[in-house]
Amino acid sequence: MEDQSLKPIRCKAAVCRANGAPLVIEDIFVDAPKAYEIRIKIICTSLCHTDLTFWRVKEEFGIPPLFPRILGHEAYGVVESVGERVEGYAAGDTVVPTFLGQCESCSSCASEGNNMCSAVPFALGPGMRRDGTTRFRDTHGAPLHDLMAVSSFSQYTVVDVNQVVKVDASVPPKLACILGCGAGTGVGAAWKLAKVEPASSVAVFGLGAVGLSVAQGAKMCGASKIIGVDLNPDKRELGKIFGVTDFINPSELGESSVVEVIIKMTGGGADYCFECIGLASVMTDAFRSCKQGKGKTVILGVEQDGKPICLPAFEFLFGKCVMGSLFGGIKPKTDIPILAEKCMNKELELEKLITHELDLQDINTAFDLLVQGKSLRCIIWMEKLVV
Amino acid sequence: MEDQSLKPIRCKAAVCRANGAPLVIEDIFVDAPKAYEIRIKIICTSLCHTDLTFWRVKEEFGIPPLFPRILGHEAYGVVESVGERVEGYAAGDTVVPTFLGQCESCSSCASEGNNMCSAVPFALGPGMRRDGTTRFRDTHGAPLHDLMAVSSFSQYTVVDVNQVVKVDASVPPKLACILGCGAGTGVGAAWKLAKVEPASSVAVFGLGAVGLSVAQGAKMCGASKIIGVDLNPDKRELGKIFGVTDFINPSELGESSVVEVIIKMTGGGADYCFECIGLASVMTDAFRSCKQGKGKTVILGVEQDGKPICLPAFEFLFGKCVMGSLFGGIKPKTDIPILAEKCMNKELELEKLITHELDLQDINTAFDLLVQGKSLRCIIWMEKLVV
Ligand SMILES: NC(=O)c1ccc[n+]([C@@H]2O[C@H](COP(=O)([O-])OP(=O)(O)OC[C@H]3O[C@@H](n4cnc5c(N)ncnc54)[C@H](O)[C@@H]3O)[C@@H](O)[C@H]2O)c1
Ligand SMILES: NC(=O)c1ccc[n+]([C@@H]2O[C@H](COP(=O)([O-])OP(=O)(O)OC[C@H]3O[C@@H](n4cnc5c(N)ncnc54)[C@H](O)[C@@H]3O)[C@@H](O)[C@H]2O)c1
Ligand SMILES: [Zn+2]
Ligand SMILES: [Zn+2]
Ligand SMILES: [Zn+2]
Ligand SMILES: [Zn+2]
Repeated sequence: MEDQSLKPIRCKAAVCRANGAPLVIEDIFVDAPKAYEIRIKIICTSLCHTDLTFWRVKEEFGIPPLFPRILGHEAYGVVESVGERVEGYAAGDTVVPTFLGQCESCSSCASEGNNMCSAVPFALGPGMRRDGTTRFRDTHGAPLHDLMAVSSFSQYTVVDVNQVVKVDASVPPKLACILGCGAGTGVGAAWKLAKVEPASSVAVFGLGAVGLSVAQGAKMCGASKIIGVDLNPDKRELGKIFGVTDFINPSELGESSVVEVIIKMTGGGADYCFECIGLASVMTDAFRSCKQGKGKTVILGVEQDGKPICLPAFEFLFGKCVMGSLFGGIKPKTDIPILAEKCMNKELELEKLITHELDLQDINTAFDLLVQGKSLRCIIWMEKLVV
Repeated sequence: MEDQSLKPIRCKAAVCRANGAPLVIEDIFVDAPKAYEIRIKIICTSLCHTDLTFWRVKEEFGIPPLFPRILGHEAYGVVESVGERVEGYAAGDTVVPTFLGQCESCSSCASEGNNMCSAVPFALGPGMRRDGTTRFRDTHGAPLHDLMAVSSFSQYTVVDVNQVVKVDASVPPKLACILGCGAGTGVGAAWKLAKVEPASSVAVFGLGAVGLSVAQGAKMCGASKIIGVDLNPDKRELGKIFGVTDFINPSELGESSVVEVIIKMTGGGADYCFECIGLASVMTDAFRSCKQGKGKTVILGVEQDGKPICLPAFEFLFGKCVMGSLFGGIKPKTDIPILAEKCMNKELELEKLITHELDLQDINTAFDLLVQGKSLRCIIWMEKLVV
């Protein structure tokens, strides 16, 4: 058998050439995987708010805007070929590429409650984490940047072995795909990071896919009150499907503030508050809505302008705590298969997060739907375009 | 026996009549204890930085400056009389009054890791927590405000039963006294709140009595690197006594920042950072000096001007966590006796925190010593002045 891993592949990808500009479906070249790398044929991918943040990225954000770039980091695919020194993966394996790695042997991976692998540390990039270079070129030979070393808005991509999670072929592709970021982050944050206790109260700020997954995770953990906060009135009904018991639309409160309303509803503050939007001001509200004693505030949102969070210092003294994580604190290789199983045996109900499905050529519609708050997750199927 | 609890007591107290003004030793009247209250003859008290903060208090602080006022909240004494409905306490009991209460039956008291009793909740005041009134009057009959319902700069005080900790008469008064706030807070923060793990790295910002007690607590928990940060060069040698292994004086760093130096010394950030000064800017430094993955930043300082803490939102996503507490997360009635025992069997070495001893009439000298950074804890003996 000829070693495919030596040849670049020509395929279609949605390329972002300038911030905020519609993506362009282009022919690109995807290099062969180098040592410790895996080339994956993407079956489907979905759009997460973090893609929007990097698509619109401004200088204030703290990292330089990088274009042209291939976005996308929530996906499912099949291993096409593996580079040197890759062990335990072979062509045909069904996998989820993830923006967070897990080497399974460093001290962080060995430590409970730490999902920041220190062997091949998370980095926003640019480039692959071991050598900083990209595997993508356009037809003129010009390099194309990656996103978090995943770049799934391409029919083929190359990902570090550290960032490739094997999932059983019986797991539905769409489910595996959304567990690869949004759903995994939300459920993980309630289950693994905050460790929501039975009969507790939870407030979720932002009922996108991440926030609704937090609600599902909190429900799975036995929370008795799950308050959803969103400016979009459609989220009132939608929230119920995922376990939200009470809904607050901040624009309908008149004189009172969200903080006051939550403190009143919970008799002193919620046991757990989750920020799933990406706004510093809402992070402050979440903290202030949290109960004294041992209330936990969990930051999941990626601040859209890179603004700092400002918090009243005294309130920390009353036993409050703020934490945050990438991927909700889950370890991708350990926990994605567990979450998939929980979904398949109906302990978790996440399928309804998938509100739309499109083909790659219509990817800009997926952007519009998310920007307008009309979709939760839109699955983008990669195969229909002929290479 | 005549019921003393019905009569006010005339005694000496150090009264603060205006912010920043020297205290005045005055004759005052201390009312009889009401229901659920205990009148205590103070044997000794000490001065904590929090007394300084309330002595100098400015409007910006967020609570109105209250004068005339009797400060003091770190003390040891003997029960003089008890009010109605007080059970389990009798005249002659040796006790530590504490600014934080513990009812031992509410859900917060029953919950591990929550020291904010909800039966008689902590409040800055003014007044006793059940009825908001004061038990102090001057010789003209004018009311004198309390501090956190303890006010130990008086030969007698009245404290809620919730806030009175019985300690064995074998515990040395000076030791019991400092466990009543500074030492208990510092050790507790390392031991109970942060739960410092063996072989970990710790950075302590501010080596006053609180910070040095954190260092001792971290040493007791088995930390292998304990970095002390202080602007006062005398703290370099002093720190060693309490377990500090490395010292940083931020004013001697030239081009580098404290954050950079700590990240370098620890190979990526300290596992635990404690702020024991009360400056929002240092709280930010502590957070930034903390390790990604599961680094914990602990806020103990009472922000001196009531300023908010501003933190880079992204760093939370890397698994960082900020927590804080009153009294280092300890439950006074449960943990002060345990800490006293650990001191008496030399598991903890806290005696050297006591650098000075004075009589009540010299209390302003104790203020000078603490303001000038010359003392850690100055014990103030209350008996010498004849009533
Ligand atoms: N920490 C991680 O690892 C991680 C992973 C995935 C996503 N994220 C971040 O989580 C956040 C949510 O992602 P998503 O994909 O669910 O986004 P989304 O766009 O689907 O959902 C955001 C929701 O917030 C609501 N909203 C916006 N502004 C609001 C306001 N001021 N008050 C109340 N509601 C408001 C919107 O109506 C929407 O329902 C984003 O910041 C994203 O970057 C973080
Ligand atoms: N959370 C609680 O329950 C609790 C209990 C007791 C005290 N406190 C607070 O803890 C803090 C410390 O109390 P303490 O009695 O130990 O105070 P202290 O005055 O004895 O010690 C403060 C130390 O910080 C140092 N320092 C001041 N500014 C500094 C700077 N910019 N950088 C580095 N070092 C600096 C000083 O030199 C001194 O050594 C205060 O804010 C106090 O109000 C909180
Ligand atoms: Zn690892
Ligand atoms: Zn995402
Ligand atoms: Zn104190
Ligand atoms: Zn209680």
